[in-house]
Amino acid sequence: MIVTPIAVGDPPLLNAAGLHAPYALRTIVELISEDGVSGISEIPGSDKTTQALRDAATVVVGRDPYALTGLEQALRGRFGEDVDDQRGLQPWDQRQLVHMFSALEVACLDMVGRATNRPVVDLLGGRARDRVDFSAYLFFKHAGAGGPLGTGTDPSASGWPAARQAEALDPTGIVAQAEAMCEVYGFRSIKLKAGALDPEIEVESMRALRLAFGDRVPLRIDPNAVWSVDTAIRWGKELEGILEYYEDPTRGQEGMARVRQSVDIPLATNMCTTSFDDLPGSVRLGSEDIILSDHHYWGGLRASIELGRFCRSFGLGLSMHSNSHVGISLAAMTHLAAAVPNLTYALDTHYPWQSDEVIVGGELQFVDGSLAVPEGPGLGVELDRDALARLHQNYLDCGLSHRDDEVEMQKVEPGWTFQSTRW
Amino acid sequence: MIVTPIAVGDPPLLNAAGLHAPYALRTIVELISEDGVSGISEIPGSDKTTQALRDAATVVVGRDPYALTGLEQALRGRFGEDVDDQRGLQPWDQRQLVHMFSALEVACLDMVGRATNRPVVDLLGGRARDRVDFSAYLFFKHAGAGGPLGTGTDPSASGWPAARQAEALDPTGIVAQAEAMCEVYGFRSIKLKAGALDPEIEVESMRALRLAFGDRVPLRIDPNAVWSVDTAIRWGKELEGILEYYEDPTRGQEGMARVRQSVDIPLATNMCTTSFDDLPGSVRLGSEDIILSDHHYWGGLRASIELGRFCRSFGLGLSMHSNSHVGISLAAMTHLAAAVPNLTYALDTHYPWQSDEVIVGGELQFVDGSLAVPEGPGLGVELDRDALARLHQNYLDCGLSHRDDEVEMQKVEPGWTFQSTRW
Repeated sequence: MIVTPIAVGDPPLLNAAGLHAPYALRTIVELISEDGVSGISEIPGSDKTTQALRDAATVVVGRDPYALTGLEQALRGRFGEDVDDQRGLQPWDQRQLVHMFSALEVACLDMVGRATNRPVVDLLGGRARDRVDFSAYLFFKHAGAGGPLGTGTDPSASGWPAARQAEALDPTGIVAQAEAMCEVYGFRSIKLKAGALDPEIEVESMRALRLAFGDRVPLRIDPNAVWSVDTAIRWGKELEGILEYYEDPTRGQEGMARVRQSVDIPLATNMCTTSFDDLPGSVRLGSEDIILSDHHYWGGLRASIELGRFCRSFGLGLSMHSNSHVGISLAAMTHLAAAVPNLTYALDTHYPWQSDEVIVGGELQFVDGSLAVPEGPGLGVELDRDALARLHQNYLDCGLSHRDDEVEMQKVEPGWTFQSTRW
Repeated sequence: MIVTPIAVGDPPLLNAAGLHAPYALRTIVELISEDGVSGISEIPGSDKTTQALRDAATVVVGRDPYALTGLEQALRGRFGEDVDDQRGLQPWDQRQLVHMFSALEVACLDMVGRATNRPVVDLLGGRARDRVDFSAYLFFKHAGAGGPLGTGTDPSASGWPAARQAEALDPTGIVAQAEAMCEVYGFRSIKLKAGALDPEIEVESMRALRLAFGDRVPLRIDPNAVWSVDTAIRWGKELEGILEYYEDPTRGQEGMARVRQSVDIPLATNMCTTSFDDLPGSVRLGSEDIILSDHHYWGGLRASIELGRFCRSFGLGLSMHSNSHVGISLAAMTHLAAAVPNLTYALDTHYPWQSDEVIVGGELQFVDGSLAVPEGPGLGVELDRDALARLHQNYLDCGLSHRDDEVEMQKVEPGWTFQSTRW
């Protein structure tokens, strides 16, 4: 078992928690069997996650990659239940044990797929579809490219690479960003990460997108739960008829349920219902219409299949959340989405924002906003050893030990603090 | 794809629907791959099920055994949605499409397991336990052994084979049946199929079992939903402190919820919540504490894993239902139960009642009421060709085309009719 933290270039994207650092952190897990079959995976990175995974090696090494239930039991035995449960307080998820198991499960399934010469989608019940649609994911942002350039820019860039580093702090900038991204990737639906600027600017940006793209392109906005219930209802009413879904406008299942009763747009979440333990509250309160799955956070690919069954049974829609990621996670997301019949919404992906890649062959190629399930056994992607070494060196050099968008924001706006409800 | 209906000897057991015929019908499915790998399964049999499965061959043959989601979609495309939905009206389940898919899914997983040299439990995430506990399953019954003997008996029998053919129509008979069955199989929990005699006799039988076995042996009663809500509450109160769980005392989720509010015993069901579509009603009404899974009825082994996740998430217990069956289903039930961490109740099984077996080596052997997960790839059991031929001949000879306990009962009690609420 080899655990390698990497840092990939990430532009200065704004969100409710602050500002993306010049590097997004990921942790790469490799498992290698006695007979030389390997399996890989990728999860959100931090020194803590890297250390926890390295500590887990005593539990993992020597196990059977098929024995996933036993692995989960063994991890729980070794580390106890999650104690650092910060769900809901930050836009991303901190549950260490679920993260660790998710990373290990994907690597085990990749290994099993390679050993049996089968794609991971087949280990999940086989394909419900051959191609998976993704959504454009727009951000308000400062000028800058991230990575070694930091807040600088490459003046020779054009097209999407230029738009990727351009400032976007108003509706005009967002429309330009959308047009450049959609031109290259062919996305046919659009999501705006909101909760960063005044709601009026963000809602105005959605109206501008609607004007620019017409009603053929479904639109989503995600204020990351920093709007009050009243604010979410007020602006939600302005957005009726414009949005495909309204993602986490406010915090918590109770608040979401109140917004849902007042606004005639399907509500979606990856913040108030983020684990199986949250499902009873979701059903009781009716907090959302659509759950955004995320195999990194729900306990792996098989658990995500189980979430899919739940959504089907309870008449909920199913979409997919994304964090900054590279091609291993993108491949896993694609295998999963191909396997789940009712995952009918285009998936989120931060992929266009990352200019680094860790897999052989470089970036996976979108056609008309969709990806084919990767060919070949397992996840169908291979680690590029040179890229891995380079991105690991980035990690060592960049000085980041964990994601902290608040600290990054303070570098630009001294004294800025995260507020769980800002507007 | 080979579909073979069989008839296995079954004693004259009483239940709410009437009386078991001298033969229980099962349908055996064999899939054989191009490269000679086979997979087998077993489901409740009838001419209709046999014909439907044979009709399905056009959809099944040539497919990939990993492509289970695609198979389900193809079956739905070929046969449409279930039209003959008799759930709730009879104690057993008639949903043709779910039955067919369940049978085919198990055979596919058996084939995949054989092809990869892995037991089916590993294809379900691996073992949560090595051995699976089963429960004694008692019936009121007329004298008779079933099978070729019909209502006759083999006077040379002793021990359990003698008790199996003995009459049991009162508490004394039930206790004797329990003692003989538990002595041979080592069961450490006991279920009584009720809804057959006056509730007073059935409740008295539970008291007699408690006296005979003490509080070390958990007890269950299953009136198969033919008690009114008032009757279920009245006798439920008599059974408080005696039962591990109270299974389907009355009909429907509403009725079950009312009983559950009035009686201090966990309520269990395999009649009011029998499909994923029933789960929202179960949550809304609180109709039961424990769901009895059944891979034949819930859409296969993987769907049953998904049901397990639902129960864990919603704080419901999980047990397992049984129909008359032979060793293929018993092996599948054991693999499934070994894989589901929260399947903590001893499983139902009719196995001691069937004197015929279709697998090589004859009956699977219980130790202290439990079965080890079968060794070997796939389900770990092989078809005995001679036994299959003999039991298929039974099917052709016995004149039964489907299970009809009402008609069998009328042979003993002319004019008897099934009543959905009898007491």
